[in-house]
Amino acid sequence: MLKEYLKQVRTTTPLVHNITNYVTVNDCANILIACGGAPIMADDLDDAVEITAICGGLNLNIGTLNSRTIPTMFASGKKAAELGHPILLDPVGAGASTLRTKTASDLADQLPLTVIRGNLSEIKTLATGSGGARGVDAAIADVINEDTLDGIITFAQDYAKRSGAIIAITGATDLVTTADQACVIKNGDPMMASITSSGCMLSAMTTAYLTANPNDPFMATVAAICAMGVCGEIAKAALLPGEGNATFRNRLIDAVYNLTGDTLDTQARFTLI
Amino acid sequence: MLKEYLKQVRTTTPLVHNITNYVTVNDCANILIACGGAPIMADDLDDAVEITAICGGLNLNIGTLNSRTIPTMFASGKKAAELGHPILLDPVGAGASTLRTKTASDLADQLPLTVIRGNLSEIKTLATGSGGARGVDAAIADVINEDTLDGIITFAQDYAKRSGAIIAITGATDLVTTADQACVIKNGDPMMASITSSGCMLSAMTTAYLTANPNDPFMATVAAICAMGVCGEIAKAALLPGEGNATFRNRLIDAVYNLTGDTLDTQARFTLI
Amino acid sequence: MLKEYLKQVRTTTPLVHNITNYVTVNDCANILIACGGAPIMADDLDDAVEITAICGGLNLNIGTLNSRTIPTMFASGKKAAELGHPILLDPVGAGASTLRTKTASDLADQLPLTVIRGNLSEIKTLATGSGGARGVDAAIADVINEDTLDGIITFAQDYAKRSGAIIAITGATDLVTTADQACVIKNGDPMMASITSSGCMLSAMTTAYLTANPNDPFMATVAAICAMGVCGEIAKAALLPGEGNATFRNRLIDAVYNLTGDTLDTQARFTLI
Repeated sequence: MLKEYLKQVRTTTPLVHNITNYVTVNDCANILIACGGAPIMADDLDDAVEITAICGGLNLNIGTLNSRTIPTMFASGKKAAELGHPILLDPVGAGASTLRTKTASDLADQLPLTVIRGNLSEIKTLATGSGGARGVDAAIADVINEDTLDGIITFAQDYAKRSGAIIAITGATDLVTTADQACVIKNGDPMMASITSSGCMLSAMTTAYLTANPNDPFMATVAAICAMGVCGEIAKAALLPGEGNATFRNRLIDAVYNLTGDTLDTQARFTLI
Repeated sequence: MLKEYLKQVRTTTPLVHNITNYVTVNDCANILIACGGAPIMADDLDDAVEITAICGGLNLNIGTLNSRTIPTMFASGKKAAELGHPILLDPVGAGASTLRTKTASDLADQLPLTVIRGNLSEIKTLATGSGGARGVDAAIADVINEDTLDGIITFAQDYAKRSGAIIAITGATDLVTTADQACVIKNGDPMMASITSSGCMLSAMTTAYLTANPNDPFMATVAAICAMGVCGEIAKAALLPGEGNATFRNRLIDAVYNLTGDTLDTQARFTLI
Repeated sequence: MLKEYLKQVRTTTPLVHNITNYVTVNDCANILIACGGAPIMADDLDDAVEITAICGGLNLNIGTLNSRTIPTMFASGKKAAELGHPILLDPVGAGASTLRTKTASDLADQLPLTVIRGNLSEIKTLATGSGGARGVDAAIADVINEDTLDGIITFAQDYAKRSGAIIAITGATDLVTTADQACVIKNGDPMMASITSSGCMLSAMTTAYLTANPNDPFMATVAAICAMGVCGEIAKAALLPGEGNATFRNRLIDAVYNLTGDTLDTQARFTLI
């Protein structure tokens, strides 16, 4: 059934506006093309709002945020909201600095985000208030596993309810929740953590899936995360002796480029709860 | 005969100053080295003019332009003009936002550009005035093919005459014109559109060819575009099952690195009109 | 014996804060992961000092420096100094523009740098005062070879003594000096000069080695430079017909990812003087 979400991306070529960091931006652009979408990057206040308007979705990534790009994120976010475009927030490094925590929190407060996608630490920072309040979340485990899963689902669903966004927590095990839905995904390969761009690329690709599947953002998010995980497995299986993380990155994007709906449905390992 | 233009690049190692976007900048640097040139990137007003002065050519690319880099483009452009260096403008996204259209138009108006290289939509935006005037060009077709070629040549030669620049329109079929010359190029592979950096890399490489061949910028541009197209074909032919756009990017740059003058002359498919 | 320095990196996963250029930043991030460290990039004044504080080392690279990032380099440098973190300066393009020369000189003057790593021209610019004074160094050769080695060692040791930093001059032959130590390294491959990121990646990786080996920064620097050189040789040996600089870049990072301590010790060619 996930194949339908992939097919929508490939047949509608969703144009995604990315305000994102300069570390992984090239990978994000290439994976957007690989999955069937199309990228535009623009981060100047005088340029970005118009670019938002000609796109179908908005991907906000706060890695290497700065004083010039932060106001742009809010302005483009408001335009996207006005136009009913899906907006994804990737709170890179929330909790690591006051500026990142505050910016991510303010974006989550002021924009009608469709999805917030981050690792567990980043999502906990956002869900429990600004960085200083992190002690509050002591009851929430740091890793998703069989023992901690129920508690983390309860936590994520509560945050989904409060924020109005789909919460996607990714790591060795991935979790996608709304206020009353939850999906656990067990695709992927540890080597995905060995490249700098896995999370950023997933956020970009998820935005393409959201844009192409406006009627079911929850399953569109599940499909995108499964697709990335399956492609991580394909990339790892294709790795030759002597190859490492640089070639893995290429093989991962290549796998997204070649992914078929049938392969996605056959290899996806997700459980709706 | 194109081999002579390539040879000039390899023997003179033209140093190219790039004020360009952060999406494709790494690819631009590597393809400049691959073709036989050398890259420098500098985009701060206090730094760039001196960098322009030690280089031999200037590549201006307005993707991810911003309030800090726009004045730099004008200042470096004026210095390059003063020194008689070739200047190439890549009007990425002209027509997509007011800022991009205006910046590209103003650069074209104020600088003695050697080449303007873009896709047909971008060139039409520039040639027919600011974005709002795009309705004017309704008579110009949107794709270069046998039926539309004559009309587009007339259009491009008119713009070449008015702007004083060589006009290079690239796509499935490429066209290079001056006020009274025209060349149609049919190299390349559709997969070049599957990576984010094809156009940007071509602009960077063309600047290297212009710098190394100051006496014949028209044929230098033709040679660079043929070289990129031939390398796209080589890259595609080398692609293995399971490989996609990430590996294609690498194979494309690799092909430029290994391109010989004989291969270029054998595989180039261009027609001077 | 170098294997111990590598082992320290792999077992302590040093977190390195990079304020670096946007041309090679993705490569720097991936090589930091490949070598066993972890990268963070942050260059906004309001963000970077806190990021410096949660890292273990700081890599300052002045390529594509700008009016916004220069004050950040000083502020993060002061925080790193306060915390006793190693700081590496890569003076990209010092000598090529007044701003680069002045910024690199000021950073060297105001911060307790652990290592300054650059090519011979950049180091000469820094050692002999601002760009205008470059005539002074006429007595210093431009290339390290058997005839010039002694003079360059004397020059580098003098600058090491005056600056208090380890001086690492890299090129076909590499040289690492303190006021009273010197090491000549003969690993590497000429193809390393065919990619844009070799120097920047080496600086990032060296910072990881410094962070993981606080008690012996001199030998940590030697180990990092040997590791990069050995990996350049491995990458070159693995290159297939038709492959060029793009694939070489990937194979180089891959080789760092797979480098073992035994391979490093077997293939390293360094001489302590």
